[in-house]
Amino acid sequence: MVAIILSVGDELVLGQTVDTNSAWLSQQLAAVGCDIAAHATVGDDQRAVEHAIAESAGRCDVLIVSGGLGPTEDDLTRQAIAAVMKVDLILSEEWLATMQGFFDKIGRTMPESNKIQAMIPRGSKMIFNTCGTAAGIEATISGGVSGQRTGAGKSTTPNADHSPLTPGPSAGCVLFAVPGVPKEMKAMFARDVLPHIEKLAGGAAIRSRTLHTFGLGESTVAERLGELMKRGRNPSVGTTVSGGVVSLRVNARFESVERSTRELQNTVDACHAALGDVIYGQDEDTLPSVVGRLLIKKGSSVATAESCTGGLLAKYLTDAAGSSAYFTHGWITYADRAKGQLLGVQNVEQNGAVSAETVRQMSQSAMKESGSTYALAISGIAGPTGATPEKPVGTVYIALAAAEGWQSVEARHFLFPGDREMVRDRSAKMAMTMLRYRLLGTPLPF
Amino acid sequence: MVAIILSVGDELVLGQTVDTNSAWLSQQLAAVGCDIAAHATVGDDQRAVEHAIAESAGRCDVLIVSGGLGPTEDDLTRQAIAAVMKVDLILSEEWLATMQGFFDKIGRTMPESNKIQAMIPRGSKMIFNTCGTAAGIEATISGGVSGQRTGAGKSTTPNADHSPLTPGPSAGCVLFAVPGVPKEMKAMFARDVLPHIEKLAGGAAIRSRTLHTFGLGESTVAERLGELMKRGRNPSVGTTVSGGVVSLRVNARFESVERSTRELQNTVDACHAALGDVIYGQDEDTLPSVVGRLLIKKGSSVATAESCTGGLLAKYLTDAAGSSAYFTHGWITYADRAKGQLLGVQNVEQNGAVSAETVRQMSQSAMKESGSTYALAISGIAGPTGATPEKPVGTVYIALAAAEGWQSVEARHFLFPGDREMVRDRSAKMAMTMLRYRLLGTPLPF
Repeated sequence: MVAIILSVGDELVLGQTVDTNSAWLSQQLAAVGCDIAAHATVGDDQRAVEHAIAESAGRCDVLIVSGGLGPTEDDLTRQAIAAVMKVDLILSEEWLATMQGFFDKIGRTMPESNKIQAMIPRGSKMIFNTCGTAAGIEATISGGVSGQRTGAGKSTTPNADHSPLTPGPSAGCVLFAVPGVPKEMKAMFARDVLPHIEKLAGGAAIRSRTLHTFGLGESTVAERLGELMKRGRNPSVGTTVSGGVVSLRVNARFESVERSTRELQNTVDACHAALGDVIYGQDEDTLPSVVGRLLIKKGSSVATAESCTGGLLAKYLTDAAGSSAYFTHGWITYADRAKGQLLGVQNVEQNGAVSAETVRQMSQSAMKESGSTYALAISGIAGPTGATPEKPVGTVYIALAAAEGWQSVEARHFLFPGDREMVRDRSAKMAMTMLRYRLLGTPLPF
Repeated sequence: MVAIILSVGDELVLGQTVDTNSAWLSQQLAAVGCDIAAHATVGDDQRAVEHAIAESAGRCDVLIVSGGLGPTEDDLTRQAIAAVMKVDLILSEEWLATMQGFFDKIGRTMPESNKIQAMIPRGSKMIFNTCGTAAGIEATISGGVSGQRTGAGKSTTPNADHSPLTPGPSAGCVLFAVPGVPKEMKAMFARDVLPHIEKLAGGAAIRSRTLHTFGLGESTVAERLGELMKRGRNPSVGTTVSGGVVSLRVNARFESVERSTRELQNTVDACHAALGDVIYGQDEDTLPSVVGRLLIKKGSSVATAESCTGGLLAKYLTDAAGSSAYFTHGWITYADRAKGQLLGVQNVEQNGAVSAETVRQMSQSAMKESGSTYALAISGIAGPTGATPEKPVGTVYIALAAAEGWQSVEARHFLFPGDREMVRDRSAKMAMTMLRYRLLGTPLPF
């Protein structure tokens, strides 16, 4: 199965937007056994899109086209697909009705221009969009290469031996057009496109899991995993980093579902053995969702008192639906006087707003005032201003107060690298990590 | 001048690394008047690189190839260029000596494998690298399109009339191979590649600006812009959407910097005339940064009282460095009892936690307690749970209290589309928008 990813948009070819869709799509396609032959990007120009579709279709079995499905004049993907297929555009009554319902719900009149979004090339299928008005398109374009691939040298997955899994000659290239907005694209792709491609991939049984860690650097994680990350290993283990979270992608590729499932589990177990509680969750798990589940399990709750993070910790803790079960109160005491006024913190000036003593008092007050089982408090220098020689940008104190009598307030000093956004993000994630370890009954390992 | 950017690397096609080089290169090329016809990405496979170079060279005047110049076995760009040129690789004594000096300086022996980095295709020129051992390559490949471009329909800047800018028939496609490591690539490109391309491009001047709006849908914005968005117009106006923000990209392309600058400003002025205060900023501006500047200008401050957004509004308001000048206090009253306990909100149960009366009281208390000039309060049903027939998911009340006596508290009802994350995000952005309009002294237009 050879795949090509085509992105459409002037903002991409002009460099005004970095294309993150292609990397995400590649990971998804690789995980179900596709070789990704190429990425291509063209602007909002119908002939350029047509040329790219026709040229790509002759070199792949699956072509993903993202972007150009909006309601404006420069959205031309559906027209380009129709031109390559040599058909006209027809109305999807189903999608028109869905869009109409969407506008009715928010009490607005559907602009005339949105109607183009219900047009699809004759002979193609409409793909539902649950997050927006741009429906997707599934179409078959003459092309496809699987029958001749063995000698073509186009494999870009150097570690896998695909020969027993290659299906017979292809009937053509299957094109999936998805929106360019990452959120809409990802939802549509995961729900309606990927399962279809997995079936087309025919016989290869790929099973994947992603394990998430926070607190250790990528190279430290890699060192601890050792041989598990060796190139050529099956199941394979690779790392990616996003927002300070180091994730391990484990892919098992064998001839049967049973074997892939079993081997995947063995490797996942080995990763857990190597990294222990540093792994906080898997796949869709996030730090907030994992901490939330632990709190619910223990019948506990948490309050927040934030300075430099300005509400980000509370925002994370309320990301999950149902977070009211464990989160009720939060304070943002951004100014020094707010720390005294709202949380009764004393001697802020003498101790320093960014100090162990200040966050200790913040967390204790937040816990008592809210009646929560735990409270987290953060104060730090997010930068770029406010640093001193003793307290450089990235200096952050985090305290965890607990209603349990058995342990006093834990206040920790951290020095986070990066810019303002990174320091704030890592601070909030480290606070959740401190609470997570407390809930696990394990000391923080860093 | 038509340019294509080709990126080489398994990590790119496999999605393990997001390609940021292409966007950066596009911006540089567009700024000197190149039309960027396409981006392409292939893996570390010599035949794939050869195919991409040969195919691209026939469609452009300038081809930038980044990546594949390292010292390892999977770095194959120089071999691919030589194969397309049908020449052998020869040694650049100059670069070999430079590399040798580099290793001598750090007191190490140059590994044998590095010698390949001094090999360049016969007939090409070596480009110095001041940050690493991967020298660049400048070569001429048969191809080029400028002489025939008018009828070729390959331009992806569809709105520009290039005819006065097109140089005479091209002698071929000029290829520049640069390293894939962003730091090395950028240094080499800016120093030795771009000035050369600028000379080749001969005079075209592109000037761009991006204007940001919030509150209207993309199609409504397009309708209001009308003829300004017409295809073929120069300067061109196109829209993109991200996180509910609809941005207008304005590109002017004329024969001189003066004319491009003047025409750009005229079109920007026309966009402002069509959309008024819906445009909140341009280029690097964000809603928080714009609201922050307005607050500073007026010597005003704002406090927050949040329920469903759980701290997101305060987080946004503290995104910018220096936000302590206008933000001091925030409350997250997620539970009903917290609304009463921290902000003295009365009759929450009778009025409903999600009601105009509740947010009105929240905002007034937050303003008084904090001593701020303004306070914003948000309460809503972010979903997916908690909805009722009268209050579906997306129902949000936002109040703005002001210390000025001339206007009572403004409480507004909204129904935002989308999932939990979207409802929370749009709520926080709409709250900032309400404050922005108040600071401008203009009624909210939606």
